[in-house]
Amino acid sequence: MPLTPADDAFAAALRPRLPEDTLRPAEPRHLEEPRGRWRGTSRWVALPRTVQEVSALVTACAEARVGLVPWGGGTGLVGGQVAPDGPPPLLLSLDRMTAIRAVHPRENVMVAEAGAVLADVQEAARGADRLFALSLASEGTARIGGLLSTNAGGVNVLRYGNARDQVLGLEAVLPDGQIWHGLKRLRKDNTGYDLRNLLIGAEGTLGVITAAALKLAPRPAATGTALLVVHSPAAALDLLALARDHLGEMVSAFELIGRMGFDFLREALPDLRQPFATGPEWCVLVELGLPRGMDPQTALEELFASGLAAGLVSDGVVAQSTQQAAEFWTLREHIPEANRRIGAISSHDVSLPLEALPAFVPEGLARIAALGPFRVNCFGHLGDGNLHYNVFPPKGGTKADHQALREEIKRTIHDLVHQMGGSVSAEHGIGRLKVADLERYGDPAKLAAMRAIKAALDPAGIMNPGAVLRLPPG
Amino acid sequence: MPLTPADDAFAAALRPRLPEDTLRPAEPRHLEEPRGRWRGTSRWVALPRTVQEVSALVTACAEARVGLVPWGGGTGLVGGQVAPDGPPPLLLSLDRMTAIRAVHPRENVMVAEAGAVLADVQEAARGADRLFALSLASEGTARIGGLLSTNAGGVNVLRYGNARDQVLGLEAVLPDGQIWHGLKRLRKDNTGYDLRNLLIGAEGTLGVITAAALKLAPRPAATGTALLVVHSPAAALDLLALARDHLGEMVSAFELIGRMGFDFLREALPDLRQPFATGPEWCVLVELGLPRGMDPQTALEELFASGLAAGLVSDGVVAQSTQQAAEFWTLREHIPEANRRIGAISSHDVSLPLEALPAFVPEGLARIAALGPFRVNCFGHLGDGNLHYNVFPPKGGTKADHQALREEIKRTIHDLVHQMGGSVSAEHGIGRLKVADLERYGDPAKLAAMRAIKAALDPAGIMNPGAVLRLPPG
Repeated sequence: MPLTPADDAFAAALRPRLPEDTLRPAEPRHLEEPRGRWRGTSRWVALPRTVQEVSALVTACAEARVGLVPWGGGTGLVGGQVAPDGPPPLLLSLDRMTAIRAVHPRENVMVAEAGAVLADVQEAARGADRLFALSLASEGTARIGGLLSTNAGGVNVLRYGNARDQVLGLEAVLPDGQIWHGLKRLRKDNTGYDLRNLLIGAEGTLGVITAAALKLAPRPAATGTALLVVHSPAAALDLLALARDHLGEMVSAFELIGRMGFDFLREALPDLRQPFATGPEWCVLVELGLPRGMDPQTALEELFASGLAAGLVSDGVVAQSTQQAAEFWTLREHIPEANRRIGAISSHDVSLPLEALPAFVPEGLARIAALGPFRVNCFGHLGDGNLHYNVFPPKGGTKADHQALREEIKRTIHDLVHQMGGSVSAEHGIGRLKVADLERYGDPAKLAAMRAIKAALDPAGIMNPGAVLRLPPG
Repeated sequence: MPLTPADDAFAAALRPRLPEDTLRPAEPRHLEEPRGRWRGTSRWVALPRTVQEVSALVTACAEARVGLVPWGGGTGLVGGQVAPDGPPPLLLSLDRMTAIRAVHPRENVMVAEAGAVLADVQEAARGADRLFALSLASEGTARIGGLLSTNAGGVNVLRYGNARDQVLGLEAVLPDGQIWHGLKRLRKDNTGYDLRNLLIGAEGTLGVITAAALKLAPRPAATGTALLVVHSPAAALDLLALARDHLGEMVSAFELIGRMGFDFLREALPDLRQPFATGPEWCVLVELGLPRGMDPQTALEELFASGLAAGLVSDGVVAQSTQQAAEFWTLREHIPEANRRIGAISSHDVSLPLEALPAFVPEGLARIAALGPFRVNCFGHLGDGNLHYNVFPPKGGTKADHQALREEIKRTIHDLVHQMGGSVSAEHGIGRLKVADLERYGDPAKLAAMRAIKAALDPAGIMNPGAVLRLPPG
């Protein structure tokens, strides 16, 4: 049975069940997404203030078989937050649920509502002399609910794990409107199925996360940053192994940047200061977070020296100040902006087993070269095996010139990744962009289980319809 | 519809579908569990060699509506491995699937089959100069499949997390017999619902785990161990905070032992050497794992001094040799054996928010004292908020004398734990022992979701019937 639209009649019927001003006309920002591939069709957005109001909204939608799309910061890159197809759904914005409900420094736990912006959560942790380790480029806008629903990654995964690893408990509204009061602050709790991790990463298709008990970590006493020039991605991996042998979990970030990354920064953002006169072929940005009594500069200089001695590293700069460290990170974090300005034909967020990575990089380049004289900017979270592998037109060309090859480029990269045991969505999720990829590359038994779980928890199919799993026909 | 028994007729029909010698009469060891509370009724045990044979077995059981109980090392403490009620199920032993399929030291990954014994997995990791961090008293017998199915805990959770946190990918057979080929060696893979974490901790009720891609960690260059006497559990928590401020993730274990623990060891195992003339009221066993360049003895002596200065610690011993460190651990690891010899009336595996722990300990003692002159041995993984809180008869009495109060004692402790935001199963799971507790204390929305998921993935209810969720009537 198809869904019912969240039209003006539905809004009129819903309005008396909720506090005044909960329902508003959707604004243009609610109907857009960063890559401009889809436009939402919703007329109405609900802005609840409490989990009880979320429950009332979901219950009303379930009764009326109206689709519901949760809306956080709107920064997702795979279209999980806009529904262009099917009857227009109601948008459920978490904008008004932004409280940090509690901070427990001695427990290393914070309870935050789903609408809290990541940067505010980080700041609240810092205020209690703790670290909330999730960190990514959109942290000034992205909200906790969306970050958890997409199991976001970022630059600290190597040491602290993905969003999933930062969560102890959840409060959520399930697709029938029931509230799950699961905000446990426990490190160990083996009482039944792992509903927490099922909702995390489900991209709003199995319920609405309304709050989370988040793990905090001790703040490293000192951090240090270096840019080290390496001979190849293989050398970068050997350097990572060396760094972890010496420093264990204290390696917080290990990011790969290729020559094309530096070239693109110079082309699109010429005012950014670059540390090397010519961009090196391959380079890693290493960050350490150390406890008291250890000096990060010494540790990085020792790593540099060991890397030189092992023939892995040929050049490098250890940041001599917080400011210089920030400049290195600015370079890394502006690569996506440079990419946007130049305009990718096709962008890929892939991961590979670490051992497969050195072979993947040249093989991918060779296969793309066979399709045309394209430029490839391959960079990312090397320590996690996660590369952002983006294909651009030749210099002087535009992405519009090459739209015809877009699908073939994507297929070429994704087939290779799949063949090598990798994932075609490392950290961005499936959303609406990769539904067909999931069908093509996903394990059939897992897909069947996913469909069974979706049908069991959301029989009417109201939760974020069309995301992750294809809309049923009709 | 009720299940069909795995009787001789079923065995006769099944035999031709499998390689010779796959099906055998169940042995007595298959029908027992460590606490002696239940006896299994199965006549037949299947011993498959491959995931394909597991798939054939599950398919046959699904077609015939025959229950199936996966059997690993048989060390579970909540009866998850024996089915005393309902038509006798087929046992599925993983004894023949013990291969370490691959070790990838550079990736920090190992692929092991479900029947591999934990100690062998640890040893294989050590052989590659890596650490497999899961560690618990039964590691010489417990097998990977059971450890993952119960999301086992142990002594290293503080630093490395539960069993769940040690897994990157799974191979499993789902209740319809389909094989899920999910042995990904990826740190980031956001392609759909988290089936991995749903199977981990499901205690064999949603499928059979046949192999896992396990995370390895760099081996600490040096470890150090100390026993520090603290004034109270609250002081122990403050000391933990101090230790983590100084040493971050390098605190590998932080175990609480109370005076009753030392008394029981002296009473039941008088040959064990004890470091203190009289057992201190409260004591913590601290272990550090440090990278190169840091000296564990110095670090522990500094922690000892800081604890003294802060008024948290009153006495202590820093182990001066590997042998002395092993003696400290021997004490800790023999507490369960001492408990068994003395005989608990009721044992509880509970966890609490860390901030609630200092109030829980005296309040629990007061409530137990109101029921009678019982002895309480409260010990465990303080850093995880996980206490083993076991209630014993007065000296000279036996547990048989107090069976009548057993339920009331359990209820008293569990009610208090629940009231304080804790869990009545921290690391042992639900099994058959705590089905009623889960019904009493579990969140209704979560329970409803669990039942819906079970019905969706295992509509005939063949997988470990009666574990976690109650058998349907009839």
